[in-house]
Amino acid sequence: MSTAHGNRLRILLVGASGTLGRAVAAELGTRHHIYTAGRNSGGVRLDIGDPASLRRAMADLAPLDAVVCTAGEVAFAPLATIQPAPIGESAYTLGLTSKVLGQVNLALAAREHLVDGGSITLTSGILAELPVTAGSSASMCDAAVEGFVRAAAAELPRGIRINTVSPSILTESLPAFGWLFRGFEPVPAARAALAYSRSVEGIQTGQVFRIC
Amino acid sequence: MSTAHGNRLRILLVGASGTLGRAVAAELGTRHHIYTAGRNSGGVRLDIGDPASLRRAMADLAPLDAVVCTAGEVAFAPLATIQPAPIGESAYTLGLTSKVLGQVNLALAAREHLVDGGSITLTSGILAELPVTAGSSASMCDAAVEGFVRAAAAELPRGIRINTVSPSILTESLPAFGWLFRGFEPVPAARAALAYSRSVEGIQTGQVFRIC
Repeated sequence: MSTAHGNRLRILLVGASGTLGRAVAAELGTRHHIYTAGRNSGGVRLDIGDPASLRRAMADLAPLDAVVCTAGEVAFAPLATIQPAPIGESAYTLGLTSKVLGQVNLALAAREHLVDGGSITLTSGILAELPVTAGSSASMCDAAVEGFVRAAAAELPRGIRINTVSPSILTESLPAFGWLFRGFEPVPAARAALAYSRSVEGIQTGQVFRIC
Repeated sequence: MSTAHGNRLRILLVGASGTLGRAVAAELGTRHHIYTAGRNSGGVRLDIGDPASLRRAMADLAPLDAVVCTAGEVAFAPLATIQPAPIGESAYTLGLTSKVLGQVNLALAAREHLVDGGSITLTSGILAELPVTAGSSASMCDAAVEGFVRAAAAELPRGIRINTVSPSILTESLPAFGWLFRGFEPVPAARAALAYSRSVEGIQTGQVFRIC
């Protein structure tokens, strides 16, 4: 991997204040420089729902060695409550604009600001494969992110790599969401964070790192 | 399977004028009544991009035994030409609104107009798993449809089933698109149509029928 600053990588971490983001910062921060980014917190303010904010933030930080995203929202709702609606008024709009297009836009914006051989790591989730009640948006959006990553990997320039990490329910999230994930083996955020390290510091591309 | 009219099913086929739609009509039409639907052709006029038109069309035809969709568009574009953009201005907008949300809205609208044990069959595609140049939107959107189907199956009421058929490049589409799919084994539309029969006339739900 070529790097801008020897072995100490410059990594933009979007969603750094979340449960997963903090664990990724703890794992990668021991060896590398982390620029923490978020909508309302972190050293860098950006919103993955606002493409202009992504471009601005990365232009300020370039050259970067890696961009990692642990942000991206979806809405949970029982299918029975979801009615057909146009984009913009749908129960699926948040997921499609944030988790899917928000992360896709981050990856597209990152291209120009990453060093040769740099990497992009997105976040999908176990619901792409294993559905739960009220999780149709998460299943749809997580799968979409994985499809994008498989395809984008082959078209990124200058040896830039892209992967997505797909964790099971986090142990830390059980109090809030455990009732939706009965029987799922939870994953400590620190264990999921290893997959981000493997994506950033490894050599693979176009992969889904399933952590379950 | 319970049916509204004995063994002769009432099937709404959206996208009936396309290559795949015509093959599905030929396969299922020998045994069942097909209501052909499309934006600009067919006995029923509807647009999967317009939720109101879906509701209107199905209310007129109810009760239906099956709804099959071989419609849904995506744009092909080299990743290098795609820039970050908000939903509505993105290279991914057509796919997200038509292939993904259009088919999802069709499924949601179909719930109320299908008999107990009726079925919904959507269309994804081989690019969900195997990417090709300029196909990042197709890969993303096909995967999204598959994620939705896996999740929605468990939440549909009254024994209504849902599957998606994921065909490889159609033999009939080689003259137009074969250059994007070098090395892919093409599938005659009539062979892909068997999977729609298996979804409509079989017992499975939440499945991706890969035809490659």
